[in-house]
Amino acid sequence: METNSCDVPVNAGFPIPPRVSRKIKPEATIVNVAGVTIGGSDIVIIAGPCAVESQDQLFETARAVAAGGAGILRGGAFKPRSSPYNFQGMGEEGLRLLGLISKETGLPLVTEVMDTRQVELVAGYADMLQIGSRNMQNFPLLKEAGLCKKPILLKRGMMATIEEFLLAAEYILNQGNDQVILCERGIRTFETSTRNTLDLSAVPMLKRLSHLPVIIDPSHGTGLRWMVPAMTKAAVAVGADGIIMEVHCNPEEALCDGHQSLNLPEFEQLIKELKKIALAVDRNIS
Amino acid sequence: METNSCDVPVNAGFPIPPRVSRKIKPEATIVNVAGVTIGGSDIVIIAGPCAVESQDQLFETARAVAAGGAGILRGGAFKPRSSPYNFQGMGEEGLRLLGLISKETGLPLVTEVMDTRQVELVAGYADMLQIGSRNMQNFPLLKEAGLCKKPILLKRGMMATIEEFLLAAEYILNQGNDQVILCERGIRTFETSTRNTLDLSAVPMLKRLSHLPVIIDPSHGTGLRWMVPAMTKAAVAVGADGIIMEVHCNPEEALCDGHQSLNLPEFEQLIKELKKIALAVDRNIS
Amino acid sequence: METNSCDVPVNAGFPIPPRVSRKIKPEATIVNVAGVTIGGSDIVIIAGPCAVESQDQLFETARAVAAGGAGILRGGAFKPRSSPYNFQGMGEEGLRLLGLISKETGLPLVTEVMDTRQVELVAGYADMLQIGSRNMQNFPLLKEAGLCKKPILLKRGMMATIEEFLLAAEYILNQGNDQVILCERGIRTFETSTRNTLDLSAVPMLKRLSHLPVIIDPSHGTGLRWMVPAMTKAAVAVGADGIIMEVHCNPEEALCDGHQSLNLPEFEQLIKELKKIALAVDRNIS
Amino acid sequence: METNSCDVPVNAGFPIPPRVSRKIKPEATIVNVAGVTIGGSDIVIIAGPCAVESQDQLFETARAVAAGGAGILRGGAFKPRSSPYNFQGMGEEGLRLLGLISKETGLPLVTEVMDTRQVELVAGYADMLQIGSRNMQNFPLLKEAGLCKKPILLKRGMMATIEEFLLAAEYILNQGNDQVILCERGIRTFETSTRNTLDLSAVPMLKRLSHLPVIIDPSHGTGLRWMVPAMTKAAVAVGADGIIMEVHCNPEEALCDGHQSLNLPEFEQLIKELKKIALAVDRNIS
Repeated sequence: METNSCDVPVNAGFPIPPRVSRKIKPEATIVNVAGVTIGGSDIVIIAGPCAVESQDQLFETARAVAAGGAGILRGGAFKPRSSPYNFQGMGEEGLRLLGLISKETGLPLVTEVMDTRQVELVAGYADMLQIGSRNMQNFPLLKEAGLCKKPILLKRGMMATIEEFLLAAEYILNQGNDQVILCERGIRTFETSTRNTLDLSAVPMLKRLSHLPVIIDPSHGTGLRWMVPAMTKAAVAVGADGIIMEVHCNPEEALCDGHQSLNLPEFEQLIKELKKIALAVDRNIS
Repeated sequence: METNSCDVPVNAGFPIPPRVSRKIKPEATIVNVAGVTIGGSDIVIIAGPCAVESQDQLFETARAVAAGGAGILRGGAFKPRSSPYNFQGMGEEGLRLLGLISKETGLPLVTEVMDTRQVELVAGYADMLQIGSRNMQNFPLLKEAGLCKKPILLKRGMMATIEEFLLAAEYILNQGNDQVILCERGIRTFETSTRNTLDLSAVPMLKRLSHLPVIIDPSHGTGLRWMVPAMTKAAVAVGADGIIMEVHCNPEEALCDGHQSLNLPEFEQLIKELKKIALAVDRNIS
Repeated sequence: METNSCDVPVNAGFPIPPRVSRKIKPEATIVNVAGVTIGGSDIVIIAGPCAVESQDQLFETARAVAAGGAGILRGGAFKPRSSPYNFQGMGEEGLRLLGLISKETGLPLVTEVMDTRQVELVAGYADMLQIGSRNMQNFPLLKEAGLCKKPILLKRGMMATIEEFLLAAEYILNQGNDQVILCERGIRTFETSTRNTLDLSAVPMLKRLSHLPVIIDPSHGTGLRWMVPAMTKAAVAVGADGIIMEVHCNPEEALCDGHQSLNLPEFEQLIKELKKIALAVDRNIS
Repeated sequence: METNSCDVPVNAGFPIPPRVSRKIKPEATIVNVAGVTIGGSDIVIIAGPCAVESQDQLFETARAVAAGGAGILRGGAFKPRSSPYNFQGMGEEGLRLLGLISKETGLPLVTEVMDTRQVELVAGYADMLQIGSRNMQNFPLLKEAGLCKKPILLKRGMMATIEEFLLAAEYILNQGNDQVILCERGIRTFETSTRNTLDLSAVPMLKRLSHLPVIIDPSHGTGLRWMVPAMTKAAVAVGADGIIMEVHCNPEEALCDGHQSLNLPEFEQLIKELKKIALAVDRNIS
């Protein structure tokens, strides 16, 4: 489980904010999402569709990921989309459906919140709130999340440095909420054959500098369905505490991100392969 | 060993050059470096010092990496350095020492060539010639390497796209030399907490588009000695055919890149851990 | 005034969103900020302190930029800061002071809004609302701004492509507000000697693709006070419709961004030099 | 002509190499290219085709740029091309043609050298040797150029920091050749609507740190013919000592880079407009 075998003093080149710093709190923070813990020896799989599109699509996918080994359900009701003409999500009706299937499957729910005015609404349905990469420096939203009693899944901005990422988390902790999970989801570089460049070095770096759990999003990190398995294996080997990935019962017809979503058999097969790698690094996928 | 579990048609967004293309030659190319093969089920470890500094330093390090599980010896006699005032390598005397210890240990030798005028000289000592990242688009050097009878280790430029990387390899194959190994060694991004951003997604991408073997350089890719083990594990899990890493008998006193070189006990320990991950992905480190 | 002397068909490589597209609306949009027009032959200077720190600091700076040739006053009351421990702005009291000095000097006021819940409050004081680079893809905020009756100054995200920038503006126009000014303020690259890389090519590109006015922020674009004059001259020569720059009565003691703020004599001197360049490209600074 | 109107101490964040440093040699270096001087109050226009394709194409273009105001002729005989299947240049026959038309027009000649083995050959025809961006860190070539008696035009690598660029120039000066011109030609960023991102801030930065002349290549910097005029005007306003641009008698049929080459009337028109901007910044285009 120890990813750093060399005992070299750390110098990140910038001051580590105090509340997220491992120097000040050496023991790992365990985040508790309605009974599922992240940051310990278990590697948690968070899976589900990019967006809630319909009851059928959501329920079929959610039941399958529950059966296939997911520990937490993901799904978007409010969707940040580059174009105003793209599907913007089902809104509160999507939340309601997510709440229903979360109860049925027993999987805790994580879903995105984009607006300070919706934090309370989303927190009424979700077990963990996601702050997306485009909002990583939406400081009013970070502050509002810090006042919320639910765990926060904070995604790294696609052009955010490690320093800025930790400072964004610090905004949340500074308001009194220390249940924060950091998620690397790919950074923007000059390379265009992948959607983003998944920066797996962020895992050992963040875990060395901070006590917070770190997870990987290989779906947005690569944007390529066929590449998700290989990068997920690498994420487990590098020391990630969890994986958040897009799974869809019918990726070809998805309204959003179908090209990067696994179908159900692919998901099941991948989980089996991940378990072997988890064991090889003394971790566990239950 | 198959890294792509999803059967989605590939569209890299650019034309794949014909001689490196897997579409045209579906079976993997096996590169033979004086008897050591790269590109099959074995994962090859290439290790040694960044630069040859003295006979003692080289011989001690080389013997230790041979004992610890390396399959090929690396070491620089001609060094590309950003500043003219930095140590530029021992030159031909360095080659001579490399040749001696290569024979003694039985490890084939890879070393860098920087100048078209030195290809013949370097090929007289080395079993494989390295073309470094700063020379990835040094087209006369690529052409000269293509006329050489020795295998070529081609490093990705720190700002080269996958397309440009494949085109650079095509220059070599186009001259008649198909014994080329591709090496991802970190790309330049906005992030500064690591020396470069090691782009592990390059492994599944390159292996999908091309039949050539792909290896990873975690030393230059991270620039951080303590991070090398974690990223090397990820490289094995993601499907790399080999690892090239810097090892030094006394990193604190290295003339070059000591901050990113493993010491000898760290190297031995890492190889043990890598073997477990190799098994988990149905590969082998001998 | 025409920056594109070659008549080559445009192919930006992506679809231009319809409401911002110059193909659909060829004539330039003139934005009217309480009587000051942007997008015509005049180049407008927007100047003032990064943040309101005190009545004295604000009033002294505002009076000086008014005397020196500014057409619009800038100043921040709500400040997006990377760290929660940095000065976060004076809030509503800052807005009140900005309103007072705007009236006294006769300069229309632009100030930043960061939270959907504050749009109405800020619009009560400001003649134009600024949406900062970190909020360029804060879609709820863009939508709220689109419902507002005031002009919007939209800054390019430091990680945003030209395509994403135009799509963000489209969100605002799509709600019925076409009074939008685009502002290039530097993008994030590998280069670290400047704070950002000011992408002046964004001016001809945006003006070719869209009918909206385009301005430049050399203060954030360079982060270097001594470099602001040279880059501002270039911005005028390249065809910008305005400049937004930080000016401070005492940069050495500024609470925010003093290292990139001009002092008052520097500002006055620069305006004189800019007028000559404006004439050389058939524009005018009044 | 003074681009830095603010008297702030310089801190580039890295040590300036001694031979290129303005601290050590405060007066500007004037480079003399067969009688044409660069680095003084005159702004020099270097123009010509990307590649020599035929005698007709070269001679027509060269005579037109001579008549239109160019001070130096450019043209490539050895071409660095990403793909081995692209036109690689006419080689020595191209050099011969360049030499003929250089004599006829009286324009000194700059052309690229890519291989240490060709330095002598190219220096036999050219008045200035160009080292291209892909070879900026080809250290043997830099050293060979430093031993040559001809001025060197050194292009910034598309991935090179300002620090690395200055260190590359230092390699040349360190061999005894101080006749070096620095050329910014666009850096690689995430933005794809332009071929590269032309970093005009490199001009004031390099001129502040170094005594060497700095010129701009708007053709490669933008990759867009229609954008060349706007960016060239900006380059003059920002303080560049010269411009190197691609001009072709028939861009539509060029074998190389036609999409970024001006045709002859566009070139003539641009020079007229540039003269007005040069005057506005107290410079001169003769």
